[in-house]
Amino acid sequence: MNSGFFITFEGIDGSGKTTQSRLLATLLRDYGRDVIHTREPGGSDGAEDIRRLLVEGDPGRWSPETEILLFTAARRDHLERTIRPALGAGKVVISDRFADSTRVYQGAARADLRGTVDQLHDLMIGQEPDLTFIVDMDPEIALGRGLARESGEDRFEEMGLGFQEKLRAGFLGLAEQFPDRCHVINGNQSPASVSGEIQSVVEQWLS
Amino acid sequence: MNSGFFITFEGIDGSGKTTQSRLLATLLRDYGRDVIHTREPGGSDGAEDIRRLLVEGDPGRWSPETEILLFTAARRDHLERTIRPALGAGKVVISDRFADSTRVYQGAARADLRGTVDQLHDLMIGQEPDLTFIVDMDPEIALGRGLARESGEDRFEEMGLGFQEKLRAGFLGLAEQFPDRCHVINGNQSPASVSGEIQSVVEQWLS
Repeated sequence: MNSGFFITFEGIDGSGKTTQSRLLATLLRDYGRDVIHTREPGGSDGAEDIRRLLVEGDPGRWSPETEILLFTAARRDHLERTIRPALGAGKVVISDRFADSTRVYQGAARADLRGTVDQLHDLMIGQEPDLTFIVDMDPEIALGRGLARESGEDRFEEMGLGFQEKLRAGFLGLAEQFPDRCHVINGNQSPASVSGEIQSVVEQWLS
Repeated sequence: MNSGFFITFEGIDGSGKTTQSRLLATLLRDYGRDVIHTREPGGSDGAEDIRRLLVEGDPGRWSPETEILLFTAARRDHLERTIRPALGAGKVVISDRFADSTRVYQGAARADLRGTVDQLHDLMIGQEPDLTFIVDMDPEIALGRGLARESGEDRFEEMGLGFQEKLRAGFLGLAEQFPDRCHVINGNQSPASVSGEIQSVVEQWLS
């Protein structure tokens, strides 16, 4: 049914995945592909409204269970109104975060809720990416970058370094669980080197 | 574990359930009970924030599936932060709407999603009321009342009379499905008569 191609970028905040996902979108457009660059939480009008509830405010604002439900609601809207229509039209969709972030943030690092996350995903989402880049880097450096942004969207960064280390371990675990679609990229290199690595993987997949 | 008592009021908008649930709270307080009066969507800080996303805006703002997820997120927050602590402290909790509203609004009247609603309830909520009043009345009269309020919270009322009729049928169906806890009250009577009927049922249950 999906004639398009769905690529996701995952990793801890400050790992450079936003920059890298934008670079890839630009590159694929230069190659003549029709590309949608999007992000989670968000990526559609409704999901952006839900995003504000999730990324702003006190770290204890939501329990892990409520958080999973809000992320899933935002993802469902994003899927219905942005991702599926674009894939159906044969476009390449590049998303800065998708379901793997919920598997790691709410399913492993904040609480041991991976079973609940998986059941909710099967019930309400179902979609998996064709290709996922996990941008891996030192959590201490990444956390410094994330907080330096002063975006006001730092509810998860405020959970501290120990939390970021659990996230990193969670993303590396996912790469082992889904080896067919996941590629771990060393984010400690220069942005140009990271971009080159990503580009060569994508070219292989698309050809 | 729950030493308290959990009462819910259900029915279409404009049926008088808000007034009746408040009257019952006052009455039980006069009898010396410690009572929390609450409502859905809402009833806790987080759930009230989610409420605004649900009741404001265009009727087509959310798909039924996304709506179910948002209502469940709000309910989980309400349950964790308001209902369960109050029940655990031995209080009577009276809620203006609870899970039955989702079973009817998103599970039957808007789309045939009752299976999804039930799975999501089992996975993330689990709690049922001890006692539920379904205030039943003519949808045409109820709809006139609901819209006359000009609350700005009329996303569901704007779905029209046919929708309200489906809701009414859905609530009556629930009363048949859960006969032990559900009591259908004729809302076409005077508010005093409605209140008297409710009062006699509650006195039986609490004694």
